[in-house]
Amino acid sequence: MPTSLNTSARELIDRQVLPNLSRLRIQEQSSKNHGRILDFGCQVPGGLEAGLLLARICMADLANVQIAPADPEVWQGPTLQVTTDDPVSACMAAQYAGWKVAQGKFFAMGSGPMRAKRKREEVLDQLGIDDPSPCAVGVLECDEIPSSDIIELVANQCGVGIDQTTLCVAPTRSIAGVLQVVARSIETAMHKLHELGFDLHKVVSAHGTAPIPPVAKDFAEGIGRTNDAILYGGQVTLWVDGSDSDIESIGAKVPSIASKDFGKPFAQTFREYQYDFYKVDPGLFAPALITFVNLKTGNSLRYGKLSPEILKDSFACKES
Amino acid sequence: MPTSLNTSARELIDRQVLPNLSRLRIQEQSSKNHGRILDFGCQVPGGLEAGLLLARICMADLANVQIAPADPEVWQGPTLQVTTDDPVSACMAAQYAGWKVAQGKFFAMGSGPMRAKRKREEVLDQLGIDDPSPCAVGVLECDEIPSSDIIELVANQCGVGIDQTTLCVAPTRSIAGVLQVVARSIETAMHKLHELGFDLHKVVSAHGTAPIPPVAKDFAEGIGRTNDAILYGGQVTLWVDGSDSDIESIGAKVPSIASKDFGKPFAQTFREYQYDFYKVDPGLFAPALITFVNLKTGNSLRYGKLSPEILKDSFACKES
Amino acid sequence: MPTSLNTSARELIDRQVLPNLSRLRIQEQSSKNHGRILDFGCQVPGGLEAGLLLARICMADLANVQIAPADPEVWQGPTLQVTTDDPVSACMAAQYAGWKVAQGKFFAMGSGPMRAKRKREEVLDQLGIDDPSPCAVGVLECDEIPSSDIIELVANQCGVGIDQTTLCVAPTRSIAGVLQVVARSIETAMHKLHELGFDLHKVVSAHGTAPIPPVAKDFAEGIGRTNDAILYGGQVTLWVDGSDSDIESIGAKVPSIASKDFGKPFAQTFREYQYDFYKVDPGLFAPALITFVNLKTGNSLRYGKLSPEILKDSFACKES
Repeated sequence: MPTSLNTSARELIDRQVLPNLSRLRIQEQSSKNHGRILDFGCQVPGGLEAGLLLARICMADLANVQIAPADPEVWQGPTLQVTTDDPVSACMAAQYAGWKVAQGKFFAMGSGPMRAKRKREEVLDQLGIDDPSPCAVGVLECDEIPSSDIIELVANQCGVGIDQTTLCVAPTRSIAGVLQVVARSIETAMHKLHELGFDLHKVVSAHGTAPIPPVAKDFAEGIGRTNDAILYGGQVTLWVDGSDSDIESIGAKVPSIASKDFGKPFAQTFREYQYDFYKVDPGLFAPALITFVNLKTGNSLRYGKLSPEILKDSFACKES
Repeated sequence: MPTSLNTSARELIDRQVLPNLSRLRIQEQSSKNHGRILDFGCQVPGGLEAGLLLARICMADLANVQIAPADPEVWQGPTLQVTTDDPVSACMAAQYAGWKVAQGKFFAMGSGPMRAKRKREEVLDQLGIDDPSPCAVGVLECDEIPSSDIIELVANQCGVGIDQTTLCVAPTRSIAGVLQVVARSIETAMHKLHELGFDLHKVVSAHGTAPIPPVAKDFAEGIGRTNDAILYGGQVTLWVDGSDSDIESIGAKVPSIASKDFGKPFAQTFREYQYDFYKVDPGLFAPALITFVNLKTGNSLRYGKLSPEILKDSFACKES
Repeated sequence: MPTSLNTSARELIDRQVLPNLSRLRIQEQSSKNHGRILDFGCQVPGGLEAGLLLARICMADLANVQIAPADPEVWQGPTLQVTTDDPVSACMAAQYAGWKVAQGKFFAMGSGPMRAKRKREEVLDQLGIDDPSPCAVGVLECDEIPSSDIIELVANQCGVGIDQTTLCVAPTRSIAGVLQVVARSIETAMHKLHELGFDLHKVVSAHGTAPIPPVAKDFAEGIGRTNDAILYGGQVTLWVDGSDSDIESIGAKVPSIASKDFGKPFAQTFREYQYDFYKVDPGLFAPALITFVNLKTGNSLRYGKLSPEILKDSFACKES
């Protein structure tokens, strides 16, 4: 029986977001067509609690997301911890930002369980994702509130009614937007593994952390710091049920350090490629450190390393 | 619409304290006049869970308060983490211990949302605090259970009925009392900023931690260790929406290290001033380390430093 | 009034386990005699969330159990944090694995509140444990699902109906099984203190952490790593209400380092004793580091030390 991912996200919104909009500083936007837009940080400040909820919505409420004190060697502030017992559904069917939602001048990276209703991404087919939910819930990373047309586009592509469609939006350069991206420590590991041909259904459970960087003002810095939090400060443990040789054959390729673009703050790499995302090595998007705990053999294997000195450069916190 | 701070605290008590008194080791005191007194540690042991609830009540249930493992360089035991998206209401309108509740021989530092009903402190006026709640909830830091007269005094000054008044009491030298004080990492930062003329309404969200010190027996040591946890081990991140120059002009003055009384355990300072609180530099009461994340500019600025060696002196844990 | 330990565990199961079996990957086994068997990891994968619940059930829902980032010096992965304000009930009346549940070829270490109904262990008498609950809830550490006969045996020994009996089972070599054992940081401290003649009723509250080791495949490694997590990486704080001399007279004997079998991975010790548990020094089973916070005197005393290098050997994580 497939999990109803969108219904799960919708229930979380009904239960914890809608009754607390004012306290969470989340704003419901009126729309012309009865779709629902929830603003987590465009025209309202949002906040830490809004960010935790946005991350959970994005993972179809199939993960725990918590703020914890960071390892002070990495960052003297908070870190974001994610745990899940269903990383395929939480991270690949829902959280991965695989939908470029675009119409006219509007563009946003689309993530969340709505992707599992649309089913136009190869990765969803490959993983056999199917979601019987009668509704769609998505997360848009963008600076402006989408118009009613965008809800209609999403509803149509997902094959659900407009009034059954909810879009949660936040800029990368907002508190909730930062938390939402930094919650992707496990997701980047899963996606990289998939690209390397590892069977993701062998990943049983997962734990990940990444430091919460300062919110940026500049567009490239915003993308840069949130990515760097994972690339240079992200640490993931995956409990897998497979063979050691399957892990060993790809393990060293998983962490960010395996990428040719590893070694400097992402914003700098991005600028060097003239802000062309497609020139960046896709293999860069992975946690700094990954540990495989093999349930079948009892062996564990760890690859990569944390790079606090690059994080320091990226986060650019001026110490006096 | 102002937040109903006292109602929020009252609902937390109704929902989580009253149904679990025995498990929490919190005792309801009978009073002659239908006011409610809840003992979190005077005549009962209270505990960690009682302390977490006391801290949340004190912040009008507008913050998350959690126990986490401390940075082992600072303390090989638990730390207390606080996060809030409404630091002005949680910490200044409610948590700041700005009310000296005194009558006859009774004296207690009064904090909690009841202060927002009383509205006799300049800081509340300056911040435009107003609370429409029909009830009052306060936290008293004291060694003995207050008499019915004290509830009456509080009810009268708050302008609510005695039967709508709840006082939660705990000595500094109790487990809950320690947690309640150590939960003030963000509050001390906010109060110091206010004294330095920074507009607190620019502080959008906050995260703070401070190690949980050993409960003291001696009065001065009790005040000392809980203060030192913040002064020498407290670490706060504030997300602000302002100008860098506003931060830079006062930043270096915020952490405890800026005070002339910085540098030794607080109990020692207190003794050197013959236990006269008013001789202590008010600027001492601040976290050891503060990080400003400026949402407007994307810059972050950090001031101060942790002083584990002074904490070691203060906590006086004998290692064998 | 004694706490209804089994009812408390049962309510947790009713509230959080039974409505979420599929998501938690916990399986209810049909039994011939209307007893209930819940499989947390024998024939199903279980997971992290299942493990947290299993640990809480085992402590009669009288403790908080949380995953947190571990001290990176000890383990670059997750740690398990336990806090309780009723360590005698949570850890001694319930969690201690004092019941060898055996019949025919079946053998399992039995723990959980069912022990307080059976009342055949000396330690329960000594601590005056009594539980008026009309039901029994137990945790069995074993590789196979127990038969209906085992439920009947448990029901009979507990003096409750078979249909009022619940057994939660998980192998040491499963994710939930690992969490369940590693949640015993406080319990090992309490049990060791009891053996040393310390009055456990003087322990008011407790906080403990231990790193979550890789799940093992080998039987001895499974027992070894979970024990080592506590023996070499476990850290416990106890708030006690007693005399310093009572603590000082036994303190140095409490941590694992006081044992003649301290100093190498447990699996190795176990093998050297030809897998005869009874040859292992019982004094070995204790946390690496223990801190006593004396509420009566305000003094705190710390004994033992963490041994990350032995953990490294035990966990055997291959770093590339």
